[in-house]
Order: sequence, then structure tokens, then C-alpha cells
Amino acid sequence: MVTESAPLPSRVPDRPLWLASDGWSIEILDQTQLPYRVVVQRLLTLDQVVDAIRTMQVRGAPLIGITAAYGLCMALMTDDSDSGLEDAVGSLLASRPTAVNLHHAVHAVRDAIASTPPGSRVEVAYRMTAALAQREIDACRSIGSHGLGLLRELSQGSRRAVQVLTHCNAGWLATLQYGTALAPVYRAMEEQLPVHVWVDETRPRNQGWLTAWELAAGGVPHTVISDTMAAHLLQRGEVDIVLVGTDRTTREGDVCNKIGTLSLALAARETGVPFYAAVPSSSIDWSLDDWRSIPLEERGEEEVRWVRGLDASGVRREVAPGGAKSRVRNLAFDVTPANLVTGLITEAGICPASREGLRGLFPDLEPINPITR
Amino acid sequence: MVTESAPLPSRVPDRPLWLASDGWSIEILDQTQLPYRVVVQRLLTLDQVVDAIRTMQVRGAPLIGITAAYGLCMALMTDDSDSGLEDAVGSLLASRPTAVNLHHAVHAVRDAIASTPPGSRVEVAYRMTAALAQREIDACRSIGSHGLGLLRELSQGSRRAVQVLTHCNAGWLATLQYGTALAPVYRAMEEQLPVHVWVDETRPRNQGWLTAWELAAGGVPHTVISDTMAAHLLQRGEVDIVLVGTDRTTREGDVCNKIGTLSLALAARETGVPFYAAVPSSSIDWSLDDWRSIPLEERGEEEVRWVRGLDASGVRREVAPGGAKSRVRNLAFDVTPANLVTGLITEAGICPASREGLRGLFPDLEPINPITR
Repeated sequence: MVTESAPLPSRVPDRPLWLASDGWSIEILDQTQLPYRVVVQRLLTLDQVVDAIRTMQVRGAPLIGITAAYGLCMALMTDDSDSGLEDAVGSLLASRPTAVNLHHAVHAVRDAIASTPPGSRVEVAYRMTAALAQREIDACRSIGSHGLGLLRELSQGSRRAVQVLTHCNAGWLATLQYGTALAPVYRAMEEQLPVHVWVDETRPRNQGWLTAWELAAGGVPHTVISDTMAAHLLQRGEVDIVLVGTDRTTREGDVCNKIGTLSLALAARETGVPFYAAVPSSSIDWSLDDWRSIPLEERGEEEVRWVRGLDASGVRREVAPGGAKSRVRNLAFDVTPANLVTGLITEAGICPASREGLRGLFPDLEPINPITR
Repeated sequence: MVTESAPLPSRVPDRPLWLASDGWSIEILDQTQLPYRVVVQRLLTLDQVVDAIRTMQVRGAPLIGITAAYGLCMALMTDDSDSGLEDAVGSLLASRPTAVNLHHAVHAVRDAIASTPPGSRVEVAYRMTAALAQREIDACRSIGSHGLGLLRELSQGSRRAVQVLTHCNAGWLATLQYGTALAPVYRAMEEQLPVHVWVDETRPRNQGWLTAWELAAGGVPHTVISDTMAAHLLQRGEVDIVLVGTDRTTREGDVCNKIGTLSLALAARETGVPFYAAVPSSSIDWSLDDWRSIPLEERGEEEVRWVRGLDASGVRREVAPGGAKSRVRNLAFDVTPANLVTGLITEAGICPASREGLRGLFPDLEPINPITR
């Protein structure tokens, strides 16, 4: 449990964030160092948390949300006045614009302490953050179990391991445990259902190699491909299901996710392969009808120009595959419209990607920030 | 003209291959050194030619064909017996399996000398190769002019430069002059029609950066994106036309091209953007009905594992973005079925991607190896 004090890890961590032994600061796996080195960073201030989110030392929509909530807790330790609270909320919301979980988590903590007088706010905030973290873990475990049902169906009458294609990293590195899109895969491993994962590289940041690192650590059979190869694998019948995560899903079922997801959905539809998004309800933006109003992050061009890795001697380096004379764009997210999505795997079950589908599973959710109820 | 003796270049070459000053060996731009360094290599033997093709020092379907034809000429200088001829043909055909131009060019030379007695074969072979080279150049120039018509139409009533999206490298580096998919762009520049090219990186080998190098050298406005971004650019309406090359197009109009092309075609159809392949008739395989019988090259996994580039000090290095524990696949080509192709731009005009369309433009072509007529 991330809410308990934990000693410094004596082995490779199997989660991306935990409360430090002091009971209030947090320790994170620095994901910019993966898959090369396991580096644990301690975050003690709001600024350090904002920086860790912005530079993607922590990444993945659910994890960003929980990290931000801890950042708010830390800020309150310094200044738990109303204005201190609002300043901290503003800094956190600006750190990554696309992931809705960040908004949900920060608002949830803010709302929880709104009627609490200064002096008692810190404790309430930490308690709320612990509850949010546990809710995320429970949601991922449930998503895994629901998705496992899909994998089981696909395995019926098949002689090969179920072939899953995934994009980016939506495993435990992006959440707290299990992951979202990878949760069904980990559940399949637990249940000894044969499974093999095709892992997109996910340029420009190559988060696919984070997924490969996670899967290798967990003993899950997998193969890495470049993003360009996915449609052809589908064309050749080598994929049974596409499973992706989401940074924000509208109440209409449109799935905003890492750039490159839309291509997979189009290829899946063309080839008759089911395309599912794993969507914890914390990723749903109940305020959004039209995906065109989602702020889609555009990041610095250096992420496209420079590729990071280890050279043959194991030294970490960056190389530029191309020249400096060319302009570059770095669009970080795209949107897969609901009509291309076979279904959404949520913690409450699987539903069609539509307002009716989501309402059927979450009939009581308020239109905005349901997590704060 | 590549068929004339040329002095060693005193400036950056603007073509990828030329006959050396001795009149029989060839010099090539070593494309594995681009876009970092301009290195000219002299090829004096069949083995050197086979090696240059296999290692992609020369690449691009039309250029591979002409290079192979020169390789055959060189082989005949050593041994112009029937058995020497057949050995050389076999080596060349095995160097790259997917590009049909290689077959066409090698067969064209072989057929041209079939009835020529040993002793006179070398001269006939060089003459045939020169004719093939000129035919490629003429075809590219014509493709450019036909494609220019499409760009002109798209520019009508538009306030922005015509937005072209391309994949891999189908410019003059891949041919002898003009290129195929880029020929309309170069013609637009000649005619001062404003144009901007979105260039896919084209993982795993990043040939998009070759395209960027070519376009920068020619002063063509362009922007490099990762392959994952193309569908979203189309979704946002930022692309007017997709132009790609081909390594082999069936007589039914199915377009085999660099891995990743299929995704672009699917995204183009979804967003109502025209998708054209530039197809010199030397790239058409008149013997093929079913694209499933095209041998699709699968290359070594090191191309996916290792990314080549310059570090910040300008030193050329390779880095591995991921760990060695994961399996990797490297599928080099995919096929875009004719129903996803808006049209084929050939040297004889533009036609629907269908047997009828191609027959309409090339009514006299024999069913196999038309170039040998």
C-alpha cells in the first residue's frame, strides 16, 4: 500500500510510487531513467512534484493524478491557507494539460478540505489521497478481471497464445498496480492463460520500451515492433485484440490517448479485430461532449529530434537521427472517436463506447468531477 | 546524364548514382551515411553492387533496379558466358526480395543480350542499362508533371500552401532524378506553387530524415513528424494529399510500400483526404493478381533495436532505446489494398488503382516484364 510508510527499497521496485518512511514525502521510480537504470527519487516539495510530472519522471494518467494529490498535501504542509491551496492547485493543473485524472485528483483533495479549517487540512488531504490511491488500485484490479474475460473468449478454439497489441505504457508503471490496458494481461498470467503482447515502440518517447521492461520483469512473453508495423500485423491476422489506455475519455466514449492510438483503431476496424480502451472512471471527463475541446498537449521538438538510449558500451547517450535544418512537430495525443472503439473496459464492467454505455455502468456519477462525491 | 562519364563531384551531388570517369564502374552516394555525411563510394564488381543493395547504401526501388543493371554489366566484363550471366542474375535477384524494379531491370539486360554472342555482350548491356536509366528519369519527370496537376487542383481556393504528407523516401535519392512521390513537389517548386511537406520519420530506418535532407537541400518547406502523428494531422485537417512511392504494385493496383504506408491510407480514407501512390511502370508487377504472394522482406532486428544518429558533439553513434531482454520483429513492407488507394500516378497519367485503370494507361504492356519489350 502506498499509504503506509515504506523502507527504502532493497530490490527493484514493483510499483512506481510509495510514501517515504517519514510518512509525508514520496518516493518515485524515475521513469526517465528506465529502462536503463532503476533510480528512486524522493520528492519533498510541491515544486519537485510539479517538475517530476512535467518532465515525465512520473507518467501515465492515473499515476499523475495520485502524484499530484501528494504534491498538494506537501504544499499544505507549508501553507494551508485558502490562497496557498489555490496557488498549489494552479501549479499542479498546469503541469500536464491532457490527463483528466490530474484534475480529478487535485479537485478531490481540494474539495475534501474545503470545509476543513486550516490546521487540520494536511491530515484530511493525506487521508483523501490515500483513499484515491486505493481506489485506483482497486479499479485497475477490476479492469484486469473484466478484460480477462475478453481474453478468455478469444482463446476459445485458438491454438496460439492470445495475441494482444498495445501502445505506449499503460501498465503498473503508469498507475500504482496492475496498470489499465496491461491489467488483463497480468490477470491472464495469474490465471495461466497463454498470452503474448505486441508492444509498439511509441515514438517519439518510446514508452513501448517501458512496457517491454515491465513485461520482461513480469515474465510476460512479448515482442517489440515499430509503430509503423502494427497495421500490417493486423492485416496478417497476427493480432487478436488491441488494448490501450486513455488519458481522458469523454462522456460520449471518445478516447484521448497517446499519439498513434488512432492509427491502431483504424487498422483494427479495417481488419475486424476488437479495439478496447481500458478506462478507470477517474479517466472519464463527464463534462466533455466534444473531444475537439480537449486540450491536446504539444511538446517540445527535442523529443522527436533526439533519441535516448544506451550505446554498445552501456553508456547513456542521445543521438539525432536527422539534421537540424528541418522543422519538427511533436503532437503528444490523438483522439479515437467512439465509433472506432469496440468497447470500454472500466472497473465497473465493459460497456459500449457511448454516453448510454457509460451511464449504464456509472448511473450515479455527477456530470463533473465524479470522484469528489 | 548517368550514362556519360562524369568527373568526381566537386560539390554535393544532386543524384544518387553516376557512371565513373572510367566509363564502366559506378559511383554512388552512400545513403547509409546520410543525412550526416556525404560519402561517395565507387563500385567496381558485382559483389560490391550486391553488397551496396543489400546494406541499403543504395535504396529506393527504381534506383535499386538501375544499380543492379550496372552490377550485371560489371559481372559480364569478368565473365560474359551464359553461366556467368545466370550466376550474376541470381546474386542480384537475391539481394532485395521485395522491389520488382530489380527484377525488371536485371531481366531487361539479360533479355537484351540473350541473342548476343559472348564478346559483344558487355557493350549491349551497358547500352541497355543507359536506356533503362533514361527511361526512369523520364518516367519520374512525367509523374511529377501529372502529380502537379493534382496539387494545383488542391490549391484552388486554399489560402495555405498545399499540404503534402509523405512516407519513407521516394525522392531523387531513391531514383535518379526528381523521385516518384516527391516529383510532384519538385515540379510544384519549379512552378512556384506553394507547397509544404509533412515528412514521416519512417521507423525503423528513419528514411524520412533522408527525405528531409533532400527537401532541405532543395529549399522545400517541410516538417518532420513521428509516424504516430500522421493520422492525427489528417484528423485535424492539416493534410491535403498523401503521396507515397511503391516498391511493387500488382496489376490489380495493390500498393506494396515501406512499412507504415497502410496506416496512412486508412487514416486518409477515414478523413476524406486523397491518397495517391506514385508508380513508374517499372514498379508494376503485371504477373501478380494477389498481393498476398508478394515476398515481403523481414529484416534483422538490429534495425529496430538500434537507432543511428549524431550525438551533441557531432559524433556518429548508435543507441538502443530499450533493453536486450525483449524480442523484436522487423517487418519492412506492407500492402495497401487497391480499395484504399485514390489513384496511381504513373508516367503515362493518373488512373484508378485497378486492373482496368492500369490497362487503360498501358494497353500494350505484356503480362510479365513489360520493360523488356
